[in-house]
Amino acid sequence: MIKIAIIGATGYTGVELIRLLLNHPQAEICVVTSDSAAGARVSDVFSNLINKPDLKFMNHDTDKVSDCQLVFFATPHATAMHRVPQLLQSGCKVIDLSADYRLTDPAVWRQWYGIEHASPELLSEAVYGLPEIHRETIREARLIANPGCYPTASTLALIPAMKAETIDPNSIIVDAKSGVSGAGRQASQHALYAEVGETFKAYGLSGHRHLPEISQTISEFCKTTPSISFVPHLLPINRGILATIYAVQLNDLNIQKYYEEYYHDEPFVEVLAAGSQPDTRSTRGSNMCRIALYPNHSGDRLVIVSVIDNLVKGAAGQAIQNMNILFGLDERMGLETIGFYP
Amino acid sequence: MIKIAIIGATGYTGVELIRLLLNHPQAEICVVTSDSAAGARVSDVFSNLINKPDLKFMNHDTDKVSDCQLVFFATPHATAMHRVPQLLQSGCKVIDLSADYRLTDPAVWRQWYGIEHASPELLSEAVYGLPEIHRETIREARLIANPGCYPTASTLALIPAMKAETIDPNSIIVDAKSGVSGAGRQASQHALYAEVGETFKAYGLSGHRHLPEISQTISEFCKTTPSISFVPHLLPINRGILATIYAVQLNDLNIQKYYEEYYHDEPFVEVLAAGSQPDTRSTRGSNMCRIALYPNHSGDRLVIVSVIDNLVKGAAGQAIQNMNILFGLDERMGLETIGFYP
Amino acid sequence: MIKIAIIGATGYTGVELIRLLLNHPQAEICVVTSDSAAGARVSDVFSNLINKPDLKFMNHDTDKVSDCQLVFFATPHATAMHRVPQLLQSGCKVIDLSADYRLTDPAVWRQWYGIEHASPELLSEAVYGLPEIHRETIREARLIANPGCYPTASTLALIPAMKAETIDPNSIIVDAKSGVSGAGRQASQHALYAEVGETFKAYGLSGHRHLPEISQTISEFCKTTPSISFVPHLLPINRGILATIYAVQLNDLNIQKYYEEYYHDEPFVEVLAAGSQPDTRSTRGSNMCRIALYPNHSGDRLVIVSVIDNLVKGAAGQAIQNMNILFGLDERMGLETIGFYP
Amino acid sequence: MIKIAIIGATGYTGVELIRLLLNHPQAEICVVTSDSAAGARVSDVFSNLINKPDLKFMNHDTDKVSDCQLVFFATPHATAMHRVPQLLQSGCKVIDLSADYRLTDPAVWRQWYGIEHASPELLSEAVYGLPEIHRETIREARLIANPGCYPTASTLALIPAMKAETIDPNSIIVDAKSGVSGAGRQASQHALYAEVGETFKAYGLSGHRHLPEISQTISEFCKTTPSISFVPHLLPINRGILATIYAVQLNDLNIQKYYEEYYHDEPFVEVLAAGSQPDTRSTRGSNMCRIALYPNHSGDRLVIVSVIDNLVKGAAGQAIQNMNILFGLDERMGLETIGFYP
Repeated sequence: MIKIAIIGATGYTGVELIRLLLNHPQAEICVVTSDSAAGARVSDVFSNLINKPDLKFMNHDTDKVSDCQLVFFATPHATAMHRVPQLLQSGCKVIDLSADYRLTDPAVWRQWYGIEHASPELLSEAVYGLPEIHRETIREARLIANPGCYPTASTLALIPAMKAETIDPNSIIVDAKSGVSGAGRQASQHALYAEVGETFKAYGLSGHRHLPEISQTISEFCKTTPSISFVPHLLPINRGILATIYAVQLNDLNIQKYYEEYYHDEPFVEVLAAGSQPDTRSTRGSNMCRIALYPNHSGDRLVIVSVIDNLVKGAAGQAIQNMNILFGLDERMGLETIGFYP
Repeated sequence: MIKIAIIGATGYTGVELIRLLLNHPQAEICVVTSDSAAGARVSDVFSNLINKPDLKFMNHDTDKVSDCQLVFFATPHATAMHRVPQLLQSGCKVIDLSADYRLTDPAVWRQWYGIEHASPELLSEAVYGLPEIHRETIREARLIANPGCYPTASTLALIPAMKAETIDPNSIIVDAKSGVSGAGRQASQHALYAEVGETFKAYGLSGHRHLPEISQTISEFCKTTPSISFVPHLLPINRGILATIYAVQLNDLNIQKYYEEYYHDEPFVEVLAAGSQPDTRSTRGSNMCRIALYPNHSGDRLVIVSVIDNLVKGAAGQAIQNMNILFGLDERMGLETIGFYP
Repeated sequence: MIKIAIIGATGYTGVELIRLLLNHPQAEICVVTSDSAAGARVSDVFSNLINKPDLKFMNHDTDKVSDCQLVFFATPHATAMHRVPQLLQSGCKVIDLSADYRLTDPAVWRQWYGIEHASPELLSEAVYGLPEIHRETIREARLIANPGCYPTASTLALIPAMKAETIDPNSIIVDAKSGVSGAGRQASQHALYAEVGETFKAYGLSGHRHLPEISQTISEFCKTTPSISFVPHLLPINRGILATIYAVQLNDLNIQKYYEEYYHDEPFVEVLAAGSQPDTRSTRGSNMCRIALYPNHSGDRLVIVSVIDNLVKGAAGQAIQNMNILFGLDERMGLETIGFYP
Repeated sequence: MIKIAIIGATGYTGVELIRLLLNHPQAEICVVTSDSAAGARVSDVFSNLINKPDLKFMNHDTDKVSDCQLVFFATPHATAMHRVPQLLQSGCKVIDLSADYRLTDPAVWRQWYGIEHASPELLSEAVYGLPEIHRETIREARLIANPGCYPTASTLALIPAMKAETIDPNSIIVDAKSGVSGAGRQASQHALYAEVGETFKAYGLSGHRHLPEISQTISEFCKTTPSISFVPHLLPINRGILATIYAVQLNDLNIQKYYEEYYHDEPFVEVLAAGSQPDTRSTRGSNMCRIALYPNHSGDRLVIVSVIDNLVKGAAGQAIQNMNILFGLDERMGLETIGFYP
């Protein structure tokens, strides 16, 4: 059993980690922390966990964290970066679900997050935990930067086409739509039910922090720097991301076949049959990314639709997939939930 | 034109007052205040008001308030009670949409609101602004306590039966369900979309502030103190209240006919034909209360279903109805919107 | 492995049976039928089942059904009653999720379902599959009538109080609220998104088929015929039932303690700590019924709030619980999913 | 008073016409037809119209239609085309809200609607009723083809940029999202609440009937045939369309200023201040189209976000705007509702 701590477990990512880890045969949740809920039982905070093992939230700074083999950070950004160096020194492995170690260049990080990074020396060591492209380095990592939700949906959809050089890297448009849980569980006016229900809007048009993350991953992996228009939108649903991606096709590659082969062995990426129209529901609660391809759309454009559950493949599920790789387990362990319909 | 100030206009009740008053031929909104949004244009805060007259939010304490003939308070409770005495002295009329002047007994107020009332001497002067029972005193009032949303839906449904002594006053159950806008527009975790969407719950089971208000109104008007079980629930919709009310019938009165006659001349209460099943949508955006009656249900029980829009008949619309009475206008003026379907 | 057929598997109850049975270590789904979707793969109809074993829908009348050990009917009412006699003769066990065998009196069945029952001789043999009261007879049954969703939530909430004679059986009110999946998956105008979204209504006020079912179960089990006012409402959510139940208390029994003891050994009924406010979300996707008690509410009333997932404990999950009992398995097998938050 | 008939008034477009016309000072609804609801009162079918003038639905073929000055068709496609010729001969004006007269070429119409057009001789006479580009010809028309909802949102957003030749006509992407009322009010499985709630999907990727309509309008008006990728999506909301539009910029035109001037005198198109992020709610119930511009996005791309209420500016409101022009009234008459917040 892997001894696990979850730092900041009162958010949606934290409770999703707990839900999934309770079903994981090799995971033992030893510590969950929350400054706001310290002392409360997990089941008092999250009604879906009633009846579950008698976990209590501790303060963030509890010593018990460093006794664990693996520490998940499910905190807002700019928290993990202060504590990770010491945990690594204590011999813990760390999977950070926040944005602290996703960008490799401290100057770029400062530009998008507005403050100096507290442990910039770790930015180059941290492995960007998208297993489909970094499985081998994840295996050896001490520190894994778990990808953002939009970047997961977008990058998995774009990488085969970019690798195959079948799309113009300067023509990429990512029109992305996310459920509200992506905004977190902190009290905020703009995420109130009455502000989000029965309406729909675009946001982040002047620039969103997930764009440099998408660009960096594609640049590094495909050796070409793309120019991407990324426009996120807020959906009146709890969970789910759907990204509709557009690019100019450059050649006659059989894109459907290419993607099917590219992801043939991936347990958590599925290329849908030609003509399919994926919905976010099909991934709800599951760690799957489903991708549908529409080549030659209106002439020479490739349209890709990619769906994930933002809290699973876009956060907690992918973190556990990374844990499985890191600890030499079957990558699918604990991640085979079937989503609900409806 | 009536010169109007709205104190605390950045909540849902405030914006609804603005929407309705902009359509009112005799109303001139002169001052809207908000400490948090002071300086901002109303249309920058509320996207539905884009394109509207160039109103800007001022600070709460602006002198311009006392130049108005009528001041609406759309503030949280315990705000109006500090300022109303001075405004009355300045000769303003006041309609308070908060709970500050609804209960006549300062001890009861303190019990439910947890602090001492700041102007208890006005509690007996304030008129409870339910026009269907207090029209005449409203006409002469300086200070109107605009009823709560649950009390409006519940009291209008119960009063005829109580007056007719056709139900047992000790058998009353009010099972009420409200849309989320009833919780206000302040940032709060429990009203987040992801906390409210795709779920449903009861709350306030240990006691809700609207219960003493309902009991007081019925006691005073019907000269009988009822014993009411009141259980509110939170609906995943923006607006609307539906109250399902149960009581033991005592006699053979033709309740349908009695209610139809009781409310025959009321412009904003409609008794539906026997067998109707009202939905909250039928009142959305309108000042109507719709009531359906099911006598002899499972034997000797009367079931009443009552629907309103919590922000209109349950708040801003009723406040304007009170304003119309107070200023000798046609009671329906500015209040004849038809709701949307869907 | 139990060889299983599901008749009518294209509805919400059917797909939920498939979802749960795919996770059940002793279940083998051999046949799924649907006249409308015959020939299609299950994964083409239900996007959440993409990637799952290669099941195809067959016509209802396929011979292969009678080769199975257990047949689930997930059909509308008045379907199973024609076919069950022959399947029992073939030696199959049957769990009918429709209403065909829930009422023991053929005259009552005809009154509520409007036609003659096609196999009335089986009504007295069929066991009403509420394990919490009929576990022993379920074990020996050939034919199980799986309870309705509202009756499950209501009956489990009422039975201990009725057994203890602590409430007046003539004072019971069940104010129940259900998500839309309870209306089924057939095309119908009244269940369209635009008819149900952003609104709320009561329905069935002139009488609902689940009322005789609730009354019959309580009468038989508690030897007292209650008089119940049952009013269902339609919630704008996909799944979930919450019933708020009211009754007059007759004595000073410690109801909280009594319920806790009554259900102490039940794996799928949980009595919440005093003061809890259960939400439907806490049971979403799970087979739990959660019950909260508020004794002495407004004096001498008992209020009970009961929540279930209408498709799990209210349908498919309870059916599998019955299957587990019938086949001598651990009653919890395949039913330990944790619900999502949010 | 203009004597008006509405053919097919039991759909969402029909009830919206009724709602808006009841507030119109020059409109008299004389006839509303519905084969399915013939004989019923309008207020029995639509709960928001309770209390309204005593209109009853007649059969479609009632003679009374031809006594009206103006006939609105709110029918599915392929209905109006059979009856319009005779109504025009009777001297009626016709505004068709269906797709029957939107495409000028009968071969293109047949290609997208699958049958022969029944009155192709009228296709060239019919005026495409987008007032912002055809105001003068609308004034003189007998037959107006009211635009589709997606085409209204998309065309108004694109036309100034196309006219100014500031975008590459072969680079246009329209990523559009619509509320469910756009799917109509007929019973259909795919529009059930439980199929649409808490999920999101793209559809129509193999081609949508609104694409030729958008292309035709832009081609005719701008004398350039664009190549457009049009991908519609289904939102879990009742009403509202948001289109996010992308195109490659060709020059340094001040696009914000150009749009502001282009639409300066239009009562129902508003160009938002730079940096605004429009939501569908801001147009709910109103006839406004709101457009926000983000030039130089990710380098040389123009992003346009356009929002309308699909049932108002996208259907009934625009039809009344056309009526106002046709009958020489103030174009804004009856169309100045303020939307609700929330």
